[in-house]
Amino acid sequence: MTNQQGQRDSVSLGNIRETCAFAPASVGNVAVGFDVLGHALQGVGDTVTIRQVEEPGVRLAGVTGVLPELPEEVERNTALKAVAAMVDALALKSGFEVHVDKGIPLGSGLGGSAASAAAAVVAVNKMLKIPLPINQLYPYALAGEMVASGSEHGDNVAASLLGGLAMVGPYGHRYPMTIPAPSRLRCIVVHPQIEIQTRNARASLKKGFSRELVVAQSANLAAFVAGCFEKNIDVITASLKDLLVEPQRAASIPGFKQVKAAALEAGALGCSISGSGPSVFAWFQAESAATAGGEAMAQAFTEEGLETRVFSSPVNCPGARLVTDAAS
Amino acid sequence: MTNQQGQRDSVSLGNIRETCAFAPASVGNVAVGFDVLGHALQGVGDTVTIRQVEEPGVRLAGVTGVLPELPEEVERNTALKAVAAMVDALALKSGFEVHVDKGIPLGSGLGGSAASAAAAVVAVNKMLKIPLPINQLYPYALAGEMVASGSEHGDNVAASLLGGLAMVGPYGHRYPMTIPAPSRLRCIVVHPQIEIQTRNARASLKKGFSRELVVAQSANLAAFVAGCFEKNIDVITASLKDLLVEPQRAASIPGFKQVKAAALEAGALGCSISGSGPSVFAWFQAESAATAGGEAMAQAFTEEGLETRVFSSPVNCPGARLVTDAAS
Repeated sequence: MTNQQGQRDSVSLGNIRETCAFAPASVGNVAVGFDVLGHALQGVGDTVTIRQVEEPGVRLAGVTGVLPELPEEVERNTALKAVAAMVDALALKSGFEVHVDKGIPLGSGLGGSAASAAAAVVAVNKMLKIPLPINQLYPYALAGEMVASGSEHGDNVAASLLGGLAMVGPYGHRYPMTIPAPSRLRCIVVHPQIEIQTRNARASLKKGFSRELVVAQSANLAAFVAGCFEKNIDVITASLKDLLVEPQRAASIPGFKQVKAAALEAGALGCSISGSGPSVFAWFQAESAATAGGEAMAQAFTEEGLETRVFSSPVNCPGARLVTDAAS
Repeated sequence: MTNQQGQRDSVSLGNIRETCAFAPASVGNVAVGFDVLGHALQGVGDTVTIRQVEEPGVRLAGVTGVLPELPEEVERNTALKAVAAMVDALALKSGFEVHVDKGIPLGSGLGGSAASAAAAVVAVNKMLKIPLPINQLYPYALAGEMVASGSEHGDNVAASLLGGLAMVGPYGHRYPMTIPAPSRLRCIVVHPQIEIQTRNARASLKKGFSRELVVAQSANLAAFVAGCFEKNIDVITASLKDLLVEPQRAASIPGFKQVKAAALEAGALGCSISGSGPSVFAWFQAESAATAGGEAMAQAFTEEGLETRVFSSPVNCPGARLVTDAAS
């Protein structure tokens, strides 16, 4: 932020010296919205604790959870980079120590880097004298996400920050939006125990798409968004498909075809890859169908010799939020 | 339609032997939805009169209006082909004579071929003992549109048939949908007196798009649809842009850059090419702004030495409808 004299305004910090925030895992792309749509997942996420310190700069204080370590350099750590982007933009006059408790496995396709960044900015926000509206934290979390993926795609960040089904908003602007998916929809995510690095997965994608594919996917995307607003399950089912990227990525996930067939057989509205995989997600109309579908999907991975972890969540579930406040 | 024995069921015709229907012109693509979005225009369109005759087959009875003639072969005439597609699918037991009164200039980018096809199927539908819901006429009108453009793009057909802002619906399905644009939005279309053939314009388009462009346009498309449902003018304004096709087509329209600048200067939410051009459309928030914008846009074309015709219409305006019924 700059003032009329072109100098950077400093945003004031309040009295809270330590905060902790949780941000959920998320499904990226949601089949029909490559780099555009995401939705949050309940029950799994990252927790970030931030403490103000005398010494300027942003440092990693520690890592716990499912990962033994994370990079200590700001430019290689999503949570640190998100905090640094916020410190820089708001000219915050303090140093910050960041502790990350990872709940989301690395390379799972569940938006772990976005969750760390989202939790971090929500934690810092609470320290401001006048906290920002949550959607204004999006650019800072996005700066963190870029560290991990090497490109600015905000589908996971939007979902992890805002919760529910979210989109990145108009191109070149900075306002992510939520889409009102039908409230009873449930998502099953099956995570097979292999690892895919987003950065590598993105690098191997084709650089372009044919006009026919783009028109087909655009027709589905427009119909999908309208179908969500209209709560029209038939339209959502007809359009919840990935014609662009799934064909390129499916071969990197052993058993994907069988897992998808199992989901659809169990009544899924649609089934595709979460982000760059290897996790596979499917949407169901009701919890009972979701439970049966999740078992069938996991079984299909088991037949490929892969261990799995299954997550079940409403599509509409909360986004990033504070866990505790500790006033100094 | 086939019955359980695999034979084609014949749909019964009623007592009405002659009908007449009007279908409006339309703006194709609507900037952000190439081959996906369209909207109807008030005050200009094609009128088709259809008469049952003894001799089987579908024939052109005559042409009036802004065109001196149209092809007489079914496979080269959009109205005839649309009727023939319907006769074939429903196994209608009659011959049909088709008179077309063209209100939409050829090669204007105003959806003339779609309007003739839409009017034709609405007219035939009225002759059925039990007329079909209007959105079920879409495949037949689309078959007619293909004759003109050489490809199956339904943006103009959906808009001309259903009215208002419409989309083609999920890919590979056959249910066009409407999108509830804010009711006060007005569209200005300026038609410069040059002619661009859709078939040629499409043939000169690039065969594909880069991943970055596709993601950017997808972000805008999803935001645009959501913005219409939410009546959010800021989001509509930010997303009503064509990043894919306008850059390829703009050079074929003399003065396009100046016309667009004039529209935006006059407060347009967005401005782009209608279909494959040469008509240029712009959306405005109110009728007064639209009137001033239309004058400025026309003036910019005039400075290029082009005569223009200006149309002004609510974005939400009626689609194809019957004009008269003449029971024999």
